[in-house]
Amino acid sequence: MIETSQKKLSGPIIRLHPNDNIVVARIDMTIGTEVPSENMTCKSQVPAGYKIAARKILKGEPILKYAVTVGFANTDIEPGYMVHSHNTDFREFDRDYAHASEFKPVDMIPENERATFQGYVRANGRVGTRNFVGILSTVNCSATVVNKIAAWFTPERLKDYPNVDGVVAFSHSIGCGMEMTGEPMQLLRRTMAGYATHPNLAGALIIGLGCERNQLKGLMEQENLSEDSNLHTFIMQESGGTTKTIQAGIEAVMAMLPKANSVKRETVSAAHLSVGLQCGGSDGFSSITANPALGAAIDILARHGGTGILSETPEIYGVEHTLTRRAASREIGEKLIERIRWWKDEYSVGRDVQINGQVSPGNQVGGLANIFEKSLGSSMKGGTGPLMAVYKYAEPVTTKGFVFMDTPGFDPVSATGQIAGGANLVAFTTGRGSMFGSKPAPCIKLATNTPMYQRLTDDMDINCGEILDGTVTLQEMGQRIFELFLRIASGEQSKSEELGLGDYEFVPWQIGIMS
Amino acid sequence: MIETSQKKLSGPIIRLHPNDNIVVARIDMTIGTEVPSENMTCKSQVPAGYKIAARKILKGEPILKYAVTVGFANTDIEPGYMVHSHNTDFREFDRDYAHASEFKPVDMIPENERATFQGYVRANGRVGTRNFVGILSTVNCSATVVNKIAAWFTPERLKDYPNVDGVVAFSHSIGCGMEMTGEPMQLLRRTMAGYATHPNLAGALIIGLGCERNQLKGLMEQENLSEDSNLHTFIMQESGGTTKTIQAGIEAVMAMLPKANSVKRETVSAAHLSVGLQCGGSDGFSSITANPALGAAIDILARHGGTGILSETPEIYGVEHTLTRRAASREIGEKLIERIRWWKDEYSVGRDVQINGQVSPGNQVGGLANIFEKSLGSSMKGGTGPLMAVYKYAEPVTTKGFVFMDTPGFDPVSATGQIAGGANLVAFTTGRGSMFGSKPAPCIKLATNTPMYQRLTDDMDINCGEILDGTVTLQEMGQRIFELFLRIASGEQSKSEELGLGDYEFVPWQIGIMS
Ligand SMILES: [Ca+2]
Ligand SMILES: [Ca+2]
Ligand SMILES: [Ca+2]
Ligand SMILES: [Ca+2]
Ligand SMILES: [Ca+2]
Repeated sequence: MIETSQKKLSGPIIRLHPNDNIVVARIDMTIGTEVPSENMTCKSQVPAGYKIAARKILKGEPILKYAVTVGFANTDIEPGYMVHSHNTDFREFDRDYAHASEFKPVDMIPENERATFQGYVRANGRVGTRNFVGILSTVNCSATVVNKIAAWFTPERLKDYPNVDGVVAFSHSIGCGMEMTGEPMQLLRRTMAGYATHPNLAGALIIGLGCERNQLKGLMEQENLSEDSNLHTFIMQESGGTTKTIQAGIEAVMAMLPKANSVKRETVSAAHLSVGLQCGGSDGFSSITANPALGAAIDILARHGGTGILSETPEIYGVEHTLTRRAASREIGEKLIERIRWWKDEYSVGRDVQINGQVSPGNQVGGLANIFEKSLGSSMKGGTGPLMAVYKYAEPVTTKGFVFMDTPGFDPVSATGQIAGGANLVAFTTGRGSMFGSKPAPCIKLATNTPMYQRLTDDMDINCGEILDGTVTLQEMGQRIFELFLRIASGEQSKSEELGLGDYEFVPWQIGIMS
Repeated sequence: MIETSQKKLSGPIIRLHPNDNIVVARIDMTIGTEVPSENMTCKSQVPAGYKIAARKILKGEPILKYAVTVGFANTDIEPGYMVHSHNTDFREFDRDYAHASEFKPVDMIPENERATFQGYVRANGRVGTRNFVGILSTVNCSATVVNKIAAWFTPERLKDYPNVDGVVAFSHSIGCGMEMTGEPMQLLRRTMAGYATHPNLAGALIIGLGCERNQLKGLMEQENLSEDSNLHTFIMQESGGTTKTIQAGIEAVMAMLPKANSVKRETVSAAHLSVGLQCGGSDGFSSITANPALGAAIDILARHGGTGILSETPEIYGVEHTLTRRAASREIGEKLIERIRWWKDEYSVGRDVQINGQVSPGNQVGGLANIFEKSLGSSMKGGTGPLMAVYKYAEPVTTKGFVFMDTPGFDPVSATGQIAGGANLVAFTTGRGSMFGSKPAPCIKLATNTPMYQRLTDDMDINCGEILDGTVTLQEMGQRIFELFLRIASGEQSKSEELGLGDYEFVPWQIGIMS
């Protein structure tokens, strides 16, 4: 699919696919620049990352990028002219889902030859990449308490527990004033349970106020949770209030620490890696550098038996047919289409959001004309392999390989769903420069372009802009990312971990109303 | 309206209004308890706070509490039997709004005789009760940065600035992945502006990521904000990333501190007090003790020229006609009814939330049969005076006296709207035991019953259970609360301030979808 994957880029433009009628400016181009490879002369001032007509495109003709329709010419466009929102229409068109028609099983690497990392093997066989103690609130009313318990465990107080990565609070703004039954409450409880039992936690506390709609008892029942040495619960109204609950919580964590500290990293197969795929602040290079490079890494990971979770449903809308065709079965494809139908026909009706046609301010500046083009780029994070499963938000991800989870595009909400589903690593591509970081799954950030990487070097883990600079191929970058996965999973700190991010990024999808 | 307001309670029951067909158990009552004042014998086991039929109530007859209909008998009920959800129907009925028909202006205390407190008079004439520096995030993506800046300013580092109450972060979980235009974004921006310019702040920073939907520029334009010595802004993508923005923010706050520290408290009229009224975890005593006592305090405050802001629209639904009748004009009454119509006919359609009939788990246990009864109690926090204005969420409250602001019932979201509107104090009644606290406006908590007060004494500021115990009248408690307002406004720490609450309670109403 990706013409450039094995060769280093050079020259003023990038041709993404032989069938495309556009090419992408690799550098800022001035009027009159000759493009011998396309037998074309540039007729517009075209900023790097923007599209140029490679041949005459007639009014009404589809604009083809990576051989996928990303819009329609709203006028005749001569070769050499810039192609952007001024001469492109965004409109719905029939996409043939052709479920499973292009399914091709992954060429798996034999188990004994697979890559490994140093992970924490839990009693239930799941594998962690970090070793935290987590403290969750059922409701905003217990947020201060869970945060104060976590804050008490300073590095100084944890110095006798070197194998514990920290005590971390997962508070949120909901849990009461919300719908008591149905998906809004079920989703919140799924999300909380996914964190409380995450392999990156050695143990957890869950703390409620007492009178909230998200009753602790209901949470435990729905999610089949029970108190044991790794999971304790408190209700503030029964524990004597704020101060006494904080004290009780500190004591409970103290009692957990020796056991939490006793676990050791051991060599495990890369098959235990589950990577949540994110993008935020995309630009015109996302689809050329970081996203397909991350996709190349996921293709490699899938061959080693691991899992890549693509999400952000509004950001695959328009190219869902490229996923359904790769689905392992019609059912998997149809599950994806049902999620999109819900977004379009129920959830987003009449709302001024991306799935209805408007990309974010940062994206427009970055050269993305419309949401189809953004979606094309976003979907590349998942690689080119078969789609093995589709999950609802925060459902446990149990199928290996390339899978999809329905989440919003908003980064913290999307990553929270993936981590709740079991992702033990997050890989985040960004063009404008996201500063995201997550706990308990560490997050690595992949820059799409070199100038941003250099500007925000404290925040970026890897510079996929090198692909654009012509110093490395897409395939080489994919391998480099895969190797970074293994190192970070084994305990190397990512940039966002060094910066201490992740304490404000637990944001369960509030899918109902606040009342 | 409140029969018991001037006399101490005694005996097994409480008669709330001469016209009521129910009375309320003051203590747990056993079968056979004689009630001479009602010429009735108790025929059920009735827990304290629950209702008892004072005379025979025929099937279909309204249940009258405070002379307001809170339900309909679904069977004939003999005197002495408990009246609760098992024999009460909850159904819609016509309520005559009779706009402004019972309007009676407040009997104002002459300006020179009004109570005073020690407040911070700002350059624009508004008066603060605290003196913080605030740091706001435009989007979840800058949450870590604003919190890390605030956390840097430990008491040790602030010790040369004794008049500064602290540096506080106001981060939230939204700002991107949301509707870009219309009420969802306008509301968020109103809320942020209300905090950034709050009289309890000496100065503020606003920090954005750069590519978010809630663009800093759009925020500043919509809210007519501009940078000056009291308001600085940063965009992380332009400031070199996480670490550099934190450093720049710390330096900006450092530069603000000398001026922030130079302000001194001075004597001002109680007319500058604006109290946000909250309840959470209500019980059967809320409507007998804490809520009407808080209402009595608001009646006093209104006579001194101050403001009380009633909110929580779902929690006045069913008794809105008691407010429209007291409205100062038909327009004010109609504005309230329009808000309720929007909740019922648009926002909450098909949702499992309180306005559609279901009270929270904590409320049902507390003896509240249905939402009308809960609403009756909730509305009493506003007192008995005329309704002077109705505001949308987070709109600046500029009218004095008793006013209403449309908010959800969920405590942090409701209080955030009131504080954004200018509330410089929050008064919170609770039966089950809320642990709420807010910044930059301090919050006092009023217990409805003595056992809870004693159980959660570290969290409760005042025990309105004394009314039930018969040691103080409602009017005396109202005066005591009013005097606490003045002391807390003058700098005395509330319980929730001593506990350090308020760092997780800034929760703007997410009124749109997360996408
Ligand atoms: Ca949080
Ligand atoms: Ca995203
Ligand atoms: Ca409330
Ligand atoms: Ca509540
Ligand atoms: Ca917050």
